[in-house]
Amino acid sequence: MAANSVLLDFSIEPSRIGDELSRKDIVKVFKENLEKYFGNLKIVYDMLIDDGYMCILSDNAGTIFTIRFFGEGLITVNIEYFKKENDSQRISFESTRQLENVLVKELNLLHGQSLPALSRGPIVKYFPTADERIIEYDIDKVLFDKRSEFQKIQIVHSKTLGNMLILDELQNIAEADLIYTQTLMQHGKENYEGKEICILGGGDGALLYELLKENPKHVVMLEIDDLVMEACNKYMNSICGDVLETRKGDNYEIIVGDCMVWIDKYIKDGKKFDYVFGDLTDIPISDTPTGEIWDFIRTILEKSFAVLKPDGKFMTHGNGASCPESLEMYEEQLKKLRPCVKFSRDTAFVPSFMEDWIFYQVTFANQ
Amino acid sequence: MAANSVLLDFSIEPSRIGDELSRKDIVKVFKENLEKYFGNLKIVYDMLIDDGYMCILSDNAGTIFTIRFFGEGLITVNIEYFKKENDSQRISFESTRQLENVLVKELNLLHGQSLPALSRGPIVKYFPTADERIIEYDIDKVLFDKRSEFQKIQIVHSKTLGNMLILDELQNIAEADLIYTQTLMQHGKENYEGKEICILGGGDGALLYELLKENPKHVVMLEIDDLVMEACNKYMNSICGDVLETRKGDNYEIIVGDCMVWIDKYIKDGKKFDYVFGDLTDIPISDTPTGEIWDFIRTILEKSFAVLKPDGKFMTHGNGASCPESLEMYEEQLKKLRPCVKFSRDTAFVPSFMEDWIFYQVTFANQ
Repeated sequence: MAANSVLLDFSIEPSRIGDELSRKDIVKVFKENLEKYFGNLKIVYDMLIDDGYMCILSDNAGTIFTIRFFGEGLITVNIEYFKKENDSQRISFESTRQLENVLVKELNLLHGQSLPALSRGPIVKYFPTADERIIEYDIDKVLFDKRSEFQKIQIVHSKTLGNMLILDELQNIAEADLIYTQTLMQHGKENYEGKEICILGGGDGALLYELLKENPKHVVMLEIDDLVMEACNKYMNSICGDVLETRKGDNYEIIVGDCMVWIDKYIKDGKKFDYVFGDLTDIPISDTPTGEIWDFIRTILEKSFAVLKPDGKFMTHGNGASCPESLEMYEEQLKKLRPCVKFSRDTAFVPSFMEDWIFYQVTFANQ
Repeated sequence: MAANSVLLDFSIEPSRIGDELSRKDIVKVFKENLEKYFGNLKIVYDMLIDDGYMCILSDNAGTIFTIRFFGEGLITVNIEYFKKENDSQRISFESTRQLENVLVKELNLLHGQSLPALSRGPIVKYFPTADERIIEYDIDKVLFDKRSEFQKIQIVHSKTLGNMLILDELQNIAEADLIYTQTLMQHGKENYEGKEICILGGGDGALLYELLKENPKHVVMLEIDDLVMEACNKYMNSICGDVLETRKGDNYEIIVGDCMVWIDKYIKDGKKFDYVFGDLTDIPISDTPTGEIWDFIRTILEKSFAVLKPDGKFMTHGNGASCPESLEMYEEQLKKLRPCVKFSRDTAFVPSFMEDWIFYQVTFANQ
């Protein structure tokens, strides 16, 4: 079950309103055309709003139509109704666009736009790009939906992307995202054989699983949220194999805990790695109280470099290519590190993000 | 300028409504939390709808809040206001999600979802996938917007895809879509050198431009809509070069006219081609392969094979991989052709479609 919201918008040369046509004249034309699809409508309420006007209509089936006039000739129409799972749409996208085109023609409007019906209900289908554009995914099932002490964890099924991990309502990784893990680890460009590796985060298990294919000496993965691993172990085996089930093998170990605490321990013990991966969520979660997000990110970087061998590498995901400001800020943090570091970037189109994503490879500057 | 629509939805265990909480209690909690972002709100109207209830609130700045209760515990919230070009959002996506999470927690709701603000106005940003999911593009400018006698033609600018041709409000081709043309022509797999080629449609000029790089004997392009070519010649030169400007060269010619009329002429004259490209409108999404459009598609196929040499090929785009029913119906049409044909398929992720697209290569079955 879901509520369907069908949204249209139009604009009219502002001088025509009041002069040639009243708002009520326009509503009358809208009403007549809507009635071709919905049968008789009645106006249940109308009101003036600042320089605007809003009119609410209804049919006999609980569909509510809101026609609103804004400044500068902008008019929006919302058509909203309850749709049970097997009900058909009360107006198809094709009909919505027909309606739009007839209205534009009949009223000689400047623009018309119609959106495919938005489905509002427990099966969440909309996620944002890095620059906050809306993307509708072909999600048809919610497989897992729990809240851990750290975050909200969902696994949903997408027809084209397979199972998808959603953390705090943001798309994290999907079964179709091998390219994400391969670009993060620079598959084919880095040699992991015999290397010692530390993963900060990485709860979906995909990075650990891919790294183990390359014969490393040892990989330790520090993940705070056991429930993420439980969920991925159940629903994401095509990307994580059995590493989240076994948790420990000859050359790897998953430690459930705050990576900051463990890194501090490694620093104290003088433990060093060939590679450290920053595979944490975009918005950091930690037991350790921290200040601003950028302070936290810089702390991660500082501590990671404190446990890296002189020729070691720190590898991490950045942000969407659509967010150059955010990428610049990250690079500003890199420039603040002492000893100095240098970095390279790589880009990949990540299927479940529906956009290009930037990945960083960072080494000490004197390397 | 645009109207911003910020949409949230929630669900609550239905038995709690009326029993533990009245709808007005719930509205009160919603109102209190909305007021943290918008200041004092007043209820301007409320009404019962079937088994539902709707309440309209407003602030002092023309923001209208619509809280609607549907069956099965579903609640939607729409926040709508007028936004001039340089105005900031009245509620950020981050704040919307905060609000959502606080409400879910405070009222112990079953689900919460918030969508990034939808921008409704003359710069159209939303286009559907083949299976009618909504995708928001990073469109920041409308460069061309005219209606020819055949269709509505727009060229818009996307930050990541470059200029994009929009025909009748559907995304057609963008500057980033070389892969589309290359997959359509099976670049690297077909040898066009010395070949005679006919393009049906192809008004954006990209296919003609790419084919001419391969030294064909001659290419004739039959495009009905001069205005599409005018628009693309002005704004899409990175994909069409100067072919739409010159219109005719030693080994190519663009004919402005109905391709069906020209094909009939070729049939009458006994003219034959090595390749015919169907670069016309998409296969319609329909329940049954009947009606005008499938007849038109079958006619195109029949006539194309009538002007193909015995070892010639018909190449065309199909539909989104998300629409298997539509692809099957197309293949049904292929199976009806006499003499019999056989076909292969190729798939490419087309950047401006934001999805995998299917392309067909069809030959006589006895080849």
